[in-house]
Amino acid sequence: MLLIKNVDVLPMNSNEEIIKNTNIYIDRSNIKHIGEIREDFEITRVVDGKNKLAMPGLVNGHTHIGMSLLRNFADDLPLQDWLTKKIWPTEANLTGEDVYWGSLLSMVEMIESGTTAFCDMYFFMEEVAKGLEKSGMRGVLTRGLIEDKDNPNTKLNETRDMFNNWNGKANGRIKVMVAPHAPYTCSPEFLIKIMELAGDLNTGIHIHLSETKKEVEDSFNIYGKSPIKHVYDLGLLDFHTIAAHCVHVDDDDIEMLYEKNVYPVNNPGSNLKLASGFAPVDKMLKKGIKVALGTDGSSSNNNLNMFEEINLAAIVNKSVNLDATSVPAYKAIEMATVNGAEALDLGGEIGSLEEGKKADLILIDLDKPHLYPRHNLISALAYGVQASDVDTVIVDGNILMEKRIVKTLDVEKIKYMANKHAKSLINR
Amino acid sequence: MLLIKNVDVLPMNSNEEIIKNTNIYIDRSNIKHIGEIREDFEITRVVDGKNKLAMPGLVNGHTHIGMSLLRNFADDLPLQDWLTKKIWPTEANLTGEDVYWGSLLSMVEMIESGTTAFCDMYFFMEEVAKGLEKSGMRGVLTRGLIEDKDNPNTKLNETRDMFNNWNGKANGRIKVMVAPHAPYTCSPEFLIKIMELAGDLNTGIHIHLSETKKEVEDSFNIYGKSPIKHVYDLGLLDFHTIAAHCVHVDDDDIEMLYEKNVYPVNNPGSNLKLASGFAPVDKMLKKGIKVALGTDGSSSNNNLNMFEEINLAAIVNKSVNLDATSVPAYKAIEMATVNGAEALDLGGEIGSLEEGKKADLILIDLDKPHLYPRHNLISALAYGVQASDVDTVIVDGNILMEKRIVKTLDVEKIKYMANKHAKSLINR
Ligand SMILES: [Zn+2]
Ligand SMILES: [Zn+2]
Repeated sequence: MLLIKNVDVLPMNSNEEIIKNTNIYIDRSNIKHIGEIREDFEITRVVDGKNKLAMPGLVNGHTHIGMSLLRNFADDLPLQDWLTKKIWPTEANLTGEDVYWGSLLSMVEMIESGTTAFCDMYFFMEEVAKGLEKSGMRGVLTRGLIEDKDNPNTKLNETRDMFNNWNGKANGRIKVMVAPHAPYTCSPEFLIKIMELAGDLNTGIHIHLSETKKEVEDSFNIYGKSPIKHVYDLGLLDFHTIAAHCVHVDDDDIEMLYEKNVYPVNNPGSNLKLASGFAPVDKMLKKGIKVALGTDGSSSNNNLNMFEEINLAAIVNKSVNLDATSVPAYKAIEMATVNGAEALDLGGEIGSLEEGKKADLILIDLDKPHLYPRHNLISALAYGVQASDVDTVIVDGNILMEKRIVKTLDVEKIKYMANKHAKSLINR
Repeated sequence: MLLIKNVDVLPMNSNEEIIKNTNIYIDRSNIKHIGEIREDFEITRVVDGKNKLAMPGLVNGHTHIGMSLLRNFADDLPLQDWLTKKIWPTEANLTGEDVYWGSLLSMVEMIESGTTAFCDMYFFMEEVAKGLEKSGMRGVLTRGLIEDKDNPNTKLNETRDMFNNWNGKANGRIKVMVAPHAPYTCSPEFLIKIMELAGDLNTGIHIHLSETKKEVEDSFNIYGKSPIKHVYDLGLLDFHTIAAHCVHVDDDDIEMLYEKNVYPVNNPGSNLKLASGFAPVDKMLKKGIKVALGTDGSSSNNNLNMFEEINLAAIVNKSVNLDATSVPAYKAIEMATVNGAEALDLGGEIGSLEEGKKADLILIDLDKPHLYPRHNLISALAYGVQASDVDTVIVDGNILMEKRIVKTLDVEKIKYMANKHAKSLINR
């Protein structure tokens, strides 16, 4: 067993308690015991938890990790120009190898900033799966589906193959879902086909919903209703649904999200930067909706640092609502842990530190000048901590990073290869 | 001379150019030469600049560094409760020694996150000056003046003593200004006395202006005009003025700020967290006002990481204006460098990397996963960089941090002492 000794623990099991100076025993993939020293357990490895805080690994609820190759490539542009003039034309030239190295670069970055699980939507997803298997991370992998009327079944078949080849693989660390890109890139007929596939595979759906004002206006013009009402009426929300963004949602939309147990993923960094606006996070949380948190792709963020997103969720909503009690620290951390886990349909396995759950956790090095004094560690985690304070990352009982050294991936090679592929990509 | 060899340089001298693979020569306090290798210069020390970017040190335009002792002490509270129930009663018990150690803790944090100069408003400012002298940083130190009708001259005399003892000291690294806390804590008569003092000392003024909606409404109720019009009419803005916040300003206010060459300091992290709202940064910048950037105190932020503020300034204003071209990356960096330097009345000495200017600069370690690929380093600095990517900090030609090791301060002792004083403070 792996023992983390003398560590403070923030379990995130629905109260704000921090357990001081305790011990975590990990047996293969799972947390065996949190508490006093147990002489009867056989210990094969000890990690010193002194001056460290253990908390659940962060869950990035919505991202496109292959897009790291386009990080810092096109910024300060209106959304339509960004997408149609820069991102889409370049993405058209992407190869599987590009996506492989871009995804590995993102996984290094996620591990280094304390993310242990993520929900990805992109293409060449088999490459992402190969990278994930290597990295030791956990993830929901989804092949983004933009309708192609000339080849209506190609991408659906890719999704089916992906599911058959990878769902449940890597000791259960990979889950495959079905991912219509958005209602504005998929006709109702195509959405119905996608739902049939999700039903066939008995899996969930990952979709972009109501990201921009224009998208909602267009939906009213075309369908006479909001994007959320549109997919509600189609029955799509009857599936387990991860709904990225939900920025421009009205009270009726919120009612439907609540009724159908949808998991909206708030991406504050990306929404702010692309000038999409402010999602009503506080309102949705108060309604009882389990809003998760994500970075979106690193070409619209421009990093995958979930601690930044926690901070943004906690501070931005206060000014939006002119209420300093909006989205308090603990709630923002919940979004990135408990709620993220449930959004990924992994609520029973990860998201909190409890006996029997998977050992997906991180250790924060509290011995940093900006984390003194220690009046309230929960505030420190939401408002003060830096990604670089993450010292150790454990997923499925395996150490992916220790003392900030990534153990599972060849970081130097990945930086080199990702950079090389990025350069070649934009000159293609 | 100190030579930084083979380094990329972002000079921040009004164009967005990055000089690739060049050399910086530093002669005592000043930048002697940026360019090709000079065989005729006598080199005493070489810093390897490979894979690093040199840029001007960041300028924190508004902070209260002694407040680090109250970091993570009171959060998620309405502003008035925060101030009147938690902060002010605790601050009433502060001693000079508390402020000394709190300020040193903040200086460690600022150095570690790439800040080389700051504008501080607090009390026991002689303690801050002693700490600054030791740390090697540069600063504008101002004794915050809240009117005390029983002792109308005490704090004014403290300011005068502070000026006489410390202005221009530490090889010119200390500048002293006069700091009326705010129009709502100083009567017009007191403000006039303060202005007389500033005139006497021939120095500038540092003040909080128009931070909250309530403050502006109260000013209209009491004086029949906005806080900015109020101090404009008193003649206060005829001094060099550093005006923290300027959140709730209308077009007339903006006109006055422009006319009087006032330097507003935007504190997005603090404003967002305290639910103060959104300053019209884009509008002020487009008007030609040189808006600087600050963290405010770390009890309302809760850190002193200026790269976070750069990121916030760049992304938040985009969504506020629903315009993804608002406050582009370079502008946000300008706020934290060039504009900050001018706000501190140090525009001729710091804020950009040019021959003859002071050698106040930082080296960013570009060899980080989240900074690959390198399509655009200016975007990377605004949207992706982390405080922990700051590798080396130089102020006045002296190395304050190298390879992330702070050279001028005893970090372990400071963490210990600050924590001890913080604990004792809240139990007093
Ligand atoms: Zn997305
Ligand atoms: Zn302030």
